[in-house]
Amino acid sequence: MSDRDPTPAEALCFEAGIKFGTLYHQFAGTPVSPASADSLATAMEDAIENQPHCRSVTVDVRHDELEAAVADGAAEYVELTGRFLEVEIVVDENEGLEVVTRMEMDGGYPLMTVETVRETSAGDASDR
Amino acid sequence: MSDRDPTPAEALCFEAGIKFGTLYHQFAGTPVSPASADSLATAMEDAIENQPHCRSVTVDVRHDELEAAVADGAAEYVELTGRFLEVEIVVDENEGLEVVTRMEMDGGYPLMTVETVRETSAGDASDR
Amino acid sequence: MSDRDPTPAEALCFEAGIKFGTLYHQFAGTPVSPASADSLATAMEDAIENQPHCRSVTVDVRHDELEAAVADGAAEYVELTGRFLEVEIVVDENEGLEVVTRMEMDGGYPLMTVETVRETSAGDASDR
Amino acid sequence: MSDRDPTPAEALCFEAGIKFGTLYHQFAGTPVSPASADSLATAMEDAIENQPHCRSVTVDVRHDELEAAVADGAAEYVELTGRFLEVEIVVDENEGLEVVTRMEMDGGYPLMTVETVRETSAGDASDR
Repeated sequence: MSDRDPTPAEALCFEAGIKFGTLYHQFAGTPVSPASADSLATAMEDAIENQPHCRSVTVDVRHDELEAAVADGAAEYVELTGRFLEVEIVVDENEGLEVVTRMEMDGGYPLMTVETVRETSAGDASDR
Repeated sequence: MSDRDPTPAEALCFEAGIKFGTLYHQFAGTPVSPASADSLATAMEDAIENQPHCRSVTVDVRHDELEAAVADGAAEYVELTGRFLEVEIVVDENEGLEVVTRMEMDGGYPLMTVETVRETSAGDASDR
Repeated sequence: MSDRDPTPAEALCFEAGIKFGTLYHQFAGTPVSPASADSLATAMEDAIENQPHCRSVTVDVRHDELEAAVADGAAEYVELTGRFLEVEIVVDENEGLEVVTRMEMDGGYPLMTVETVRETSAGDASDR
Repeated sequence: MSDRDPTPAEALCFEAGIKFGTLYHQFAGTPVSPASADSLATAMEDAIENQPHCRSVTVDVRHDELEAAVADGAAEYVELTGRFLEVEIVVDENEGLEVVTRMEMDGGYPLMTVETVRETSAGDASDR
Protein backbone atom coordinates (compact mmCIF):
# COMPACT_ATOMS: atom_id res chain seq x y z
CA MET A 1 0.00 0.00 0.00
CA SER A 2 1.28 3.46 -0.83
CA ASP A 3 0.01 6.86 0.18
CA ARG A 4 0.71 9.85 -1.98
CA ASP A 5 -0.38 13.41 -2.66
CA PRO A 6 -2.81 13.91 -5.54
CA THR A 7 -1.51 14.80 -8.98
CA PRO A 8 -2.69 18.10 -10.48
CA ALA A 9 -5.14 16.19 -12.68
CA GLU A 10 -6.56 14.29 -9.70
CA ALA A 11 -6.97 17.52 -7.72
CA LEU A 12 -8.74 19.08 -10.70
CA CYS A 13 -11.10 16.10 -11.06
CA PHE A 14 -11.95 16.56 -7.36
CA GLU A 15 -12.77 20.22 -8.09
CA ALA A 16 -15.03 19.19 -10.96
CA GLY A 17 -16.87 16.79 -8.69
CA ILE A 18 -17.46 19.56 -6.13
CA LYS A 19 -19.12 21.66 -8.83
CA PHE A 20 -21.42 18.80 -9.82
CA GLY A 21 -22.46 18.00 -6.28
CA THR A 22 -23.06 21.70 -5.66
CA LEU A 23 -25.13 22.20 -8.79
CA TYR A 24 -27.26 19.15 -8.17
CA HIS A 25 -27.96 19.48 -4.48
CA GLN A 26 -28.30 23.25 -4.33
CA PHE A 27 -31.06 23.21 -6.92
CA ALA A 28 -32.73 19.76 -6.62
CA GLY A 29 -36.24 20.25 -5.31
CA THR A 30 -36.76 23.69 -6.87
CA PRO A 31 -40.30 24.14 -8.23
CA VAL A 32 -39.92 24.07 -12.01
CA SER A 33 -42.28 24.25 -14.99
CA PRO A 34 -41.69 24.37 -18.74
CA ALA A 35 -42.01 28.17 -18.56
CA SER A 36 -39.59 28.69 -15.66
CA ALA A 37 -36.96 26.08 -16.51
CA ASP A 38 -34.76 28.26 -18.67
CA SER A 39 -34.25 31.03 -16.11
CA LEU A 40 -33.37 28.38 -13.58
CA ALA A 41 -30.84 26.79 -15.95
CA THR A 42 -29.23 30.20 -16.53
CA ALA A 43 -29.01 30.87 -12.79
CA MET A 44 -27.46 27.44 -12.22
CA GLU A 45 -24.79 28.15 -14.83
CA ASP A 46 -24.01 31.60 -13.44
CA ALA A 47 -23.95 30.41 -9.82
CA ILE A 48 -21.59 27.48 -10.36
CA GLU A 49 -19.28 29.49 -12.63
CA ASN A 50 -18.47 31.55 -9.53
CA GLN A 51 -16.63 28.62 -8.01
CA PRO A 52 -12.85 28.31 -8.30
CA HIS A 53 -11.39 26.65 -11.42
CA CYS A 54 -14.76 26.66 -13.16
CA ARG A 55 -14.35 27.65 -16.80
CA SER A 56 -17.85 26.89 -18.05
CA VAL A 57 -21.13 25.32 -17.01
CA THR A 58 -23.79 24.40 -19.55
CA VAL A 59 -27.20 23.31 -18.30
CA ASP A 60 -29.61 22.01 -20.95
CA VAL A 61 -33.21 21.47 -19.92
CA ARG A 62 -34.79 18.27 -21.24
CA HIS A 63 -38.05 19.99 -22.12
CA ASP A 64 -39.81 16.86 -23.43
CA GLU A 65 -39.18 15.04 -20.19
CA LEU A 66 -40.27 18.03 -18.13
CA GLU A 67 -43.48 18.54 -20.10
CA ALA A 68 -44.34 14.86 -19.78
CA ALA A 69 -43.77 14.96 -16.02
CA VAL A 70 -45.98 18.01 -15.58
CA ALA A 71 -48.71 16.38 -17.71
CA ASP A 72 -48.55 13.27 -15.49
CA GLY A 73 -48.44 15.13 -12.21
CA ALA A 74 -50.92 16.60 -9.77
CA ALA A 75 -49.72 20.21 -10.18
CA GLU A 76 -48.61 22.65 -12.88
CA TYR A 77 -45.00 22.19 -11.87
CA VAL A 78 -42.66 19.53 -10.58
CA GLU A 79 -39.58 19.49 -8.34
CA LEU A 80 -36.27 19.72 -10.15
CA THR A 81 -34.39 16.46 -10.36
CA GLY A 82 -31.63 15.06 -12.59
CA ARG A 83 -33.93 13.59 -15.22
CA PHE A 84 -34.83 17.07 -16.44
CA LEU A 85 -31.25 18.16 -17.11
CA GLU A 86 -28.10 17.50 -19.08
CA VAL A 87 -25.06 19.31 -17.73
CA GLU A 88 -21.49 19.84 -18.90
CA ILE A 89 -18.93 21.39 -16.57
CA VAL A 90 -15.39 22.26 -17.68
CA VAL A 91 -12.78 23.09 -15.05
CA ASP A 92 -9.24 24.16 -15.66
CA GLU A 93 -5.96 24.84 -13.95
CA ASN A 94 -3.40 27.39 -15.02
CA GLU A 95 -0.70 24.84 -15.85
CA GLY A 96 -2.50 23.80 -19.01
CA LEU A 97 -4.84 21.20 -17.59
CA GLU A 98 -8.54 20.94 -18.29
CA VAL A 99 -11.19 18.43 -17.26
CA VAL A 100 -14.52 17.98 -19.07
CA THR A 101 -17.32 16.39 -17.03
CA ARG A 102 -20.92 15.57 -17.81
CA MET A 103 -24.21 14.50 -16.26
CA GLU A 104 -26.63 12.44 -18.32
CA MET A 105 -29.35 9.99 -17.47
CA ASP A 106 -28.14 6.39 -17.51
CA GLY A 107 -30.66 3.66 -16.73
CA GLY A 108 -32.84 6.02 -14.71
CA TYR A 109 -29.96 7.44 -12.69
CA PRO A 110 -28.34 10.86 -13.31
CA LEU A 111 -24.80 9.64 -13.93
CA MET A 112 -21.94 12.13 -13.49
CA THR A 113 -18.69 11.22 -15.24
CA VAL A 114 -15.30 12.59 -16.21
CA GLU A 115 -15.36 12.58 -19.99
CA THR A 116 -11.93 13.93 -20.86
CA VAL A 117 -8.69 14.95 -19.16
CA ARG A 118 -6.93 17.39 -21.46
CA GLU A 119 -3.30 18.32 -21.00
CA THR A 120 -2.17 21.24 -23.08
CA SER A 121 1.42 22.21 -23.76
CA ALA A 122 2.91 25.10 -21.80
CA GLY A 123 2.69 27.20 -24.99
CA ASP A 124 -1.03 26.54 -25.41
CA ALA A 125 -1.68 27.50 -21.83
CA SER A 126 0.40 30.67 -21.79
CA ASP A 127 -2.24 32.88 -23.38
CA ARG A 128 -4.88 32.18 -20.76
CA MET B 1 -59.67 26.37 24.83
CA SER B 2 -61.35 26.19 21.46
CA ASP B 3 -60.29 24.35 18.31
CA ARG B 4 -61.49 25.54 14.96
CA ASP B 5 -60.75 25.30 11.25
CA PRO B 6 -58.68 28.10 9.75
CA THR B 7 -60.41 31.04 8.08
CA PRO B 8 -59.66 31.63 4.39
CA ALA B 9 -57.31 34.47 5.36
CA GLU B 10 -55.44 32.26 7.84
CA ALA B 11 -55.10 29.50 5.25
CA LEU B 12 -53.77 32.04 2.74
CA CYS B 13 -51.23 33.41 5.25
CA PHE B 14 -50.04 29.81 5.73
CA GLU B 15 -49.60 29.55 1.95
CA ALA B 16 -47.59 32.78 1.92
CA GLY B 17 -45.32 31.41 4.63
CA ILE B 18 -44.69 28.24 2.61
CA LYS B 19 -43.51 30.36 -0.30
CA PHE B 20 -41.09 32.29 1.92
CA GLY B 21 -39.64 29.19 3.52
CA THR B 22 -39.26 27.62 0.10
CA LEU B 23 -37.59 30.65 -1.44
CA TYR B 24 -35.17 31.07 1.43
CA HIS B 25 -34.11 27.51 2.05
CA GLN B 26 -34.06 26.34 -1.54
CA PHE B 27 -31.59 29.04 -2.52
CA ALA B 28 -29.64 29.86 0.68
CA GLY B 29 -26.05 28.74 0.21
CA THR B 30 -25.97 29.31 -3.56
CA PRO B 31 -22.63 30.75 -4.73
CA VAL B 32 -23.41 34.36 -5.66
CA SER B 33 -21.39 37.35 -6.90
CA PRO B 34 -22.38 40.85 -7.98
CA ALA B 35 -22.35 39.63 -11.59
CA SER B 36 -24.47 36.52 -11.04
CA ALA B 37 -26.97 37.86 -8.52
CA ASP B 38 -29.54 39.12 -10.97
CA SER B 39 -29.99 35.86 -12.85
CA LEU B 40 -30.40 34.12 -9.51
CA ALA B 41 -33.02 36.65 -8.40
CA THR B 42 -34.96 36.09 -11.64
CA ALA B 43 -34.83 32.32 -11.23
CA MET B 44 -36.04 32.63 -7.63
CA GLU B 45 -39.02 34.71 -8.75
CA ASP B 46 -39.92 32.35 -11.59
CA ALA B 47 -39.51 29.22 -9.46
CA ILE B 48 -41.67 30.37 -6.56
CA GLU B 49 -44.36 31.80 -8.85
CA ASN B 50 -45.02 28.18 -9.90
CA GLN B 51 -46.44 27.41 -6.47
CA PRO B 52 -50.21 27.47 -5.85
CA HIS B 53 -51.83 30.82 -4.98
CA CYS B 54 -48.66 32.73 -5.81
CA ARG B 55 -49.52 35.89 -7.71
CA SER B 56 -46.14 37.60 -7.70
CA VAL B 57 -42.65 37.29 -6.25
CA THR B 58 -40.21 40.20 -6.36
CA VAL B 59 -36.61 39.59 -5.33
CA ASP B 60 -34.40 42.66 -5.07
CA VAL B 61 -30.69 42.13 -4.65
CA ARG B 62 -29.00 44.42 -2.11
CA HIS B 63 -26.00 45.04 -4.34
CA ASP B 64 -24.14 47.30 -1.90
CA GLU B 65 -24.29 44.67 0.81
CA LEU B 66 -23.23 41.94 -1.61
CA GLU B 67 -20.28 43.94 -2.96
CA ALA B 68 -19.11 44.73 0.56
CA ALA B 69 -19.28 41.05 1.56
CA VAL B 70 -17.29 39.96 -1.48
CA ALA B 71 -14.69 42.66 -0.78
CA ASP B 72 -14.36 41.40 2.81
CA GLY B 73 -14.29 37.72 1.94
CA ALA B 74 -11.67 35.18 0.95
CA ALA B 75 -13.17 34.46 -2.49
CA GLU B 76 -14.75 36.26 -5.45
CA TYR B 77 -18.21 35.16 -4.34
CA VAL B 78 -20.19 34.48 -1.20
CA GLU B 79 -22.99 32.13 -0.24
CA LEU B 80 -26.48 33.52 -0.61
CA THR B 81 -28.13 34.49 2.65
CA GLY B 82 -30.96 36.80 3.66
CA ARG B 83 -28.85 39.92 4.12
CA PHE B 84 -28.37 40.16 0.35
CA LEU B 85 -32.07 40.22 -0.51
CA GLU B 86 -35.36 42.02 -0.09
CA VAL B 87 -38.36 40.00 -1.12
CA GLU B 88 -42.07 40.69 -1.58
CA ILE B 89 -44.49 37.83 -2.15
CA VAL B 90 -48.17 38.35 -2.91
CA VAL B 91 -50.55 35.40 -2.71
CA ASP B 92 -54.22 35.38 -3.53
CA GLU B 93 -57.32 33.27 -3.35
CA ASN B 94 -60.14 33.37 -5.84
CA GLU B 95 -62.73 34.68 -3.38
CA GLY B 96 -61.21 38.13 -3.38
CA LEU B 97 -58.54 37.71 -0.76
CA GLU B 98 -54.93 38.76 -1.09
CA VAL B 99 -51.99 38.69 1.31
CA VAL B 100 -48.84 40.80 0.89
CA THR B 101 -45.72 39.53 2.67
CA ARG B 102 -42.17 40.79 2.87
CA MET B 103 -38.67 39.88 3.97
CA GLU B 104 -36.32 42.63 5.13
CA MET B 105 -33.33 42.74 7.42
CA ASP B 106 -34.25 43.68 10.96
CA GLY B 107 -31.46 43.89 13.52
CA GLY B 108 -29.26 41.46 11.59
CA TYR B 109 -32.02 38.91 11.09
CA PRO B 110 -33.96 38.43 7.83
CA LEU B 111 -37.44 39.06 9.19
CA MET B 112 -40.42 37.72 7.24
CA THR B 113 -43.77 39.38 7.97
CA VAL B 114 -47.34 39.66 6.75
CA GLU B 115 -47.70 43.28 5.73
CA THR B 116 -51.30 43.45 4.57
CA VAL B 117 -54.38 41.27 4.39
CA ARG B 118 -56.58 42.64 1.62
CA GLU B 119 -60.19 41.65 1.23
CA THR B 120 -61.81 42.71 -2.01
CA SER B 121 -65.54 42.73 -2.68
CA ALA B 122 -67.05 39.85 -4.67
CA GLY B 123 -67.40 42.23 -7.60
CA ASP B 124 -63.73 43.14 -7.58
CA ALA B 125 -62.77 39.50 -7.57
CA SER B 126 -65.10 38.39 -10.37
CA ASP B 127 -62.87 39.55 -13.19
CA ARG B 128 -59.92 37.39 -12.17
CA MET C 1 -61.42 46.64 -0.97
CA SER C 2 -59.97 46.91 2.50
CA ASP C 3 -56.37 46.63 3.66
CA ARG C 4 -55.62 45.64 7.21
CA ASP C 5 -52.87 44.31 9.45
CA PRO C 6 -52.86 40.56 10.08
CA THR C 7 -54.54 39.17 13.18
CA PRO C 8 -52.33 37.24 15.63
CA ALA C 9 -53.77 33.97 14.26
CA GLU C 10 -52.99 34.99 10.67
CA ALA C 11 -49.45 35.97 11.62
CA LEU C 12 -48.99 32.62 13.35
CA CYS C 13 -50.31 30.70 10.33
CA PHE C 14 -47.72 32.57 8.25
CA GLU C 15 -45.03 31.41 10.71
CA ALA C 16 -46.25 27.82 10.40
CA GLY C 17 -46.01 28.06 6.61
CA ILE C 18 -42.42 29.30 6.84
CA LYS C 19 -41.49 26.22 8.86
CA PHE C 20 -43.07 23.90 6.28
CA GLY C 21 -41.38 25.57 3.33
CA THR C 22 -38.08 25.46 5.21
CA LEU C 23 -38.39 21.82 6.16
CA TYR C 24 -39.35 20.72 2.68
CA HIS C 25 -36.92 22.71 0.58
CA GLN C 26 -33.94 22.48 2.89
CA PHE C 27 -34.01 18.71 2.85
CA ALA C 28 -35.65 17.73 -0.48
CA GLY C 29 -33.04 16.04 -2.63
CA THR C 30 -31.07 14.53 0.26
CA PRO C 31 -29.84 11.00 -0.50
CA VAL C 32 -31.97 8.73 1.67
CA SER C 33 -32.29 4.96 2.18
CA PRO C 34 -34.37 2.86 4.56
CA ALA C 35 -31.34 2.68 6.89
CA SER C 36 -30.57 6.42 6.90
CA ALA C 37 -34.10 7.82 6.93
CA ASP C 38 -34.58 7.94 10.68
CA SER C 39 -31.47 9.99 11.43
CA LEU C 40 -32.55 12.41 8.72
CA ALA C 41 -36.05 12.68 10.22
CA THR C 42 -34.55 13.43 13.64
CA ALA C 43 -32.26 16.10 12.21
CA MET C 44 -35.20 17.68 10.36
CA GLU C 45 -37.21 17.87 13.58
CA ASP C 46 -34.32 19.32 15.58
CA ALA C 47 -33.39 21.85 12.87
CA ILE C 48 -36.87 23.27 12.37
CA GLU C 49 -37.59 23.39 16.11
CA ASN C 50 -34.87 26.05 16.28
CA GLN C 51 -37.08 28.48 14.39
CA PRO C 52 -39.16 31.08 16.26
CA HIS C 53 -42.63 30.06 17.55
CA CYS C 54 -41.98 26.41 16.76
CA ARG C 55 -43.28 24.23 19.58
CA SER C 56 -42.90 20.81 17.96
CA VAL C 57 -42.04 19.15 14.68
CA THR C 58 -42.82 15.48 14.08
CA VAL C 59 -41.44 13.82 10.94
CA ASP C 60 -42.66 10.29 10.25
CA VAL C 61 -40.92 8.34 7.53
CA ARG C 62 -43.22 6.35 5.27
CA HIS C 63 -40.94 3.32 5.24
CA ASP C 64 -43.12 1.19 2.93
CA GLU C 65 -43.10 3.87 0.29
CA LEU C 66 -39.36 4.41 0.66
CA GLU C 67 -38.54 0.72 0.44
CA ALA C 68 -40.70 0.37 -2.67
CA ALA C 69 -38.98 3.34 -4.33
CA VAL C 70 -35.51 1.95 -3.61
CA ALA C 71 -36.57 -1.46 -4.95
CA ASP C 72 -37.81 0.19 -8.17
CA GLY C 73 -34.82 2.48 -8.60
CA ALA C 74 -31.38 2.28 -10.17
CA ALA C 75 -29.47 2.81 -6.90
CA GLU C 76 -29.54 1.76 -3.24
CA TYR C 77 -31.02 5.11 -2.27
CA VAL C 78 -33.36 7.75 -3.57
CA GLU C 79 -33.65 11.52 -3.23
CA LEU C 80 -35.88 12.73 -0.44
CA THR C 81 -39.23 14.03 -1.57
CA GLY C 82 -42.63 14.56 0.06
CA ARG C 83 -44.01 11.13 -0.70
CA PHE C 84 -41.67 9.59 1.86
CA LEU C 85 -42.81 11.75 4.77
CA GLU C 86 -45.70 12.74 6.97
CA VAL C 87 -45.07 15.85 9.01
CA GLU C 88 -46.88 17.68 11.80
CA ILE C 89 -45.71 21.11 12.90
CA VAL C 90 -47.21 22.94 15.87
CA VAL C 91 -46.45 26.65 16.34
CA ASP C 92 -47.56 28.83 19.19
CA GLU C 93 -47.66 32.38 20.37
CA ASN C 94 -47.46 33.50 23.96
CA GLU C 95 -50.97 34.96 24.03
CA GLY C 96 -52.54 31.52 24.12
CA LEU C 97 -52.69 30.80 20.44
CA GLU C 98 -51.58 27.60 18.76
CA VAL C 99 -51.71 26.39 15.17
CA VAL C 100 -51.45 22.73 14.13
CA THR C 101 -50.33 22.08 10.57
CA ARG C 102 -49.72 18.92 8.60
CA MET C 103 -48.24 17.55 5.39
CA GLU C 104 -49.71 14.42 3.86
CA MET C 105 -49.88 13.02 0.37
CA ASP C 106 -53.07 13.94 -1.42
CA GLY C 107 -53.53 12.66 -4.97
CA GLY C 108 -49.80 12.38 -5.55
CA TYR C 109 -49.03 15.85 -4.20
CA PRO C 110 -47.56 16.56 -0.73
CA LEU C 111 -50.35 18.79 0.55
CA MET C 112 -49.60 21.13 3.44
CA THR C 113 -52.61 22.37 5.41
CA VAL C 114 -53.62 24.18 8.58
CA GLU C 115 -55.52 21.59 10.56
CA THR C 116 -56.52 23.51 13.67
CA VAL C 117 -56.36 27.01 15.09
CA ARG C 118 -56.51 26.70 18.86
CA GLU C 119 -57.23 29.68 21.07
CA THR C 120 -56.66 29.06 24.75
CA SER C 121 -57.99 31.24 27.52
CA ALA C 122 -55.61 33.70 29.19
CA GLY C 123 -55.50 31.36 32.20
CA ASP C 124 -54.44 28.35 30.14
CA ALA C 125 -51.66 30.34 28.55
CA SER C 126 -50.32 31.85 31.74
CA ASP C 127 -48.27 28.85 32.76
CA ARG C 128 -46.18 28.77 29.62
CA MET D 1 -2.72 19.10 -26.53
CA SER D 2 -3.80 15.59 -25.66
CA ASP D 3 -7.22 14.30 -24.68
CA ARG D 4 -7.51 11.12 -22.67
CA ASP D 5 -9.89 9.16 -20.51
CA PRO D 6 -9.53 9.61 -16.75
CA THR D 7 -7.41 7.17 -14.76
CA PRO D 8 -9.17 5.19 -12.02
CA ALA D 9 -7.66 7.53 -9.40
CA GLU D 10 -8.89 10.62 -11.27
CA ALA D 11 -12.39 9.15 -11.57
CA LEU D 12 -12.39 8.39 -7.85
CA CYS D 13 -11.25 11.93 -6.97
CA PHE D 14 -14.19 13.19 -9.05
CA GLU D 15 -16.51 10.95 -6.99
CA ALA D 16 -15.07 12.37 -3.77
CA GLY D 17 -15.71 15.89 -4.99
CA ILE D 18 -19.35 15.04 -5.76
CA LYS D 19 -19.80 13.91 -2.16
CA PHE D 20 -18.34 17.15 -0.81
CA GLY D 21 -20.45 19.37 -3.03
CA THR D 22 -23.53 17.35 -2.07
CA LEU D 23 -22.84 17.50 1.65
CA TYR D 24 -22.16 21.21 1.63
CA HIS D 25 -24.94 22.46 -0.58
CA GLN D 26 -27.65 20.09 0.57
CA PHE D 27 -27.27 21.20 4.17
CA ALA D 28 -25.93 24.80 4.00
CA GLY D 29 -28.61 27.12 5.31
CA THR D 30 -30.13 24.63 7.75
CA PRO D 31 -31.15 26.26 11.05
CA VAL D 32 -28.62 25.00 13.59
CA SER D 33 -27.96 25.60 17.28
CA PRO D 34 -25.49 24.08 19.74
CA ALA D 35 -28.24 21.68 20.86
CA SER D 36 -29.29 20.54 17.39
CA ALA D 37 -25.90 20.40 15.68
CA ASP D 38 -25.04 16.83 16.54
CA SER D 39 -28.20 15.27 15.11
CA LEU D 40 -27.61 17.25 11.94
CA ALA D 41 -24.00 16.04 11.73
CA THR D 42 -25.18 12.43 12.11
CA ALA D 43 -27.81 12.86 9.40
CA MET D 44 -25.21 14.40 7.07
CA GLU D 45 -22.90 11.42 7.57
CA ASP D 46 -25.67 8.89 7.04
CA ALA D 47 -27.07 10.69 3.98
CA ILE D 48 -23.79 11.02 2.12
CA GLU D 49 -22.69 7.48 2.95
CA ASN D 50 -25.58 6.35 0.73
CA GLN D 51 -23.78 7.63 -2.34
CA PRO D 52 -21.72 5.28 -4.53
CA HIS D 53 -18.07 4.62 -3.57
CA CYS D 54 -18.51 6.35 -0.23
CA ARG D 55 -16.75 4.38 2.48
CA SER D 56 -17.03 6.85 5.35
CA VAL D 57 -18.10 10.39 6.14
CA THR D 58 -17.10 12.07 9.40
CA VAL D 59 -18.66 15.42 10.26
CA ASP D 60 -17.26 17.17 13.33
CA VAL D 61 -19.11 20.20 14.62
CA ARG D 62 -16.91 23.11 15.67
CA HIS D 63 -18.93 23.81 18.79
CA ASP D 64 -16.85 26.79 19.96
CA GLU D 65 -17.35 28.56 16.67
CA LEU D 66 -21.07 27.75 16.65
CA GLU D 67 -21.61 28.96 20.21
CA ALA D 68 -19.77 32.20 19.47
CA ALA D 69 -21.88 32.80 16.36
CA VAL D 70 -25.14 32.23 18.25
CA ALA D 71 -23.97 34.57 21.02
CA ASP D 72 -23.21 37.26 18.41
CA GLY D 73 -26.39 36.80 16.43
CA ALA D 74 -29.94 38.08 16.57
CA ALA D 75 -31.54 34.65 17.15
CA GLU D 76 -31.02 31.45 19.14
CA TYR D 77 -29.72 29.70 16.07
CA VAL D 78 -27.73 30.38 12.92
CA GLU D 79 -27.71 29.01 9.40
CA LEU D 80 -25.30 26.17 8.77
CA THR D 81 -22.20 27.14 6.85
CA GLY D 82 -18.72 25.71 6.44
CA ARG D 83 -17.14 27.51 9.37
CA PHE D 84 -19.08 25.33 11.80
CA LEU D 85 -17.80 22.02 10.41
CA GLU D 86 -14.78 19.87 9.76
CA VAL D 87 -15.44 16.98 7.41
CA GLU D 88 -13.49 13.94 6.24
CA ILE D 89 -14.80 11.82 3.38
CA VAL D 90 -13.13 8.59 2.28
CA VAL D 91 -14.13 7.02 -1.04
CA ASP D 92 -12.90 3.76 -2.45
CA GLU D 93 -12.97 1.55 -5.48
CA ASN D 94 -13.01 -2.17 -5.09
CA GLU D 95 -9.72 -2.76 -6.93
CA GLY D 96 -7.52 -1.35 -4.19
CA LEU D 97 -7.83 2.40 -4.55
CA GLU D 98 -8.84 4.83 -1.85
CA VAL D 99 -9.01 8.63 -1.69
CA VAL D 100 -9.09 10.62 1.56
CA THR D 101 -10.53 14.14 1.33
CA ARG D 102 -11.10 16.86 3.88
CA MET D 103 -12.81 20.20 4.45
CA GLU D 104 -11.27 22.67 6.89
CA MET D 105 -11.37 26.42 7.26
CA ASP D 106 -8.46 28.13 5.54
CA GLY D 107 -8.27 31.93 5.73
CA GLY D 108 -12.01 32.24 6.23
CA TYR D 109 -12.92 29.93 3.37
CA PRO D 110 -14.04 26.29 3.79
CA LEU D 111 -11.32 24.65 1.74
CA MET D 112 -11.95 21.15 0.37
CA THR D 113 -8.84 19.17 -0.59
CA VAL D 114 -7.65 15.72 -1.58
CA GLU D 115 -5.34 14.70 1.24
CA THR D 116 -4.18 11.27 0.15
CA VAL D 117 -4.47 8.92 -2.80
CA ARG D 118 -3.86 5.43 -1.53
CA GLU D 119 -3.06 2.58 -3.88
CA THR D 120 -2.93 -0.91 -2.48
CA SER D 121 -0.74 -3.37 -4.35
CA ALA D 122 -0.02 -2.60 -8.03
CA GLY D 123 -1.17 -6.11 -8.94
CA ASP D 124 -4.60 -5.42 -7.49
CA ALA D 125 -4.97 -2.24 -9.50
CA SER D 126 -3.42 -3.45 -12.75
CA ASP D 127 -6.48 -5.23 -14.12
CA ARG D 128 -8.57 -2.09 -14.55
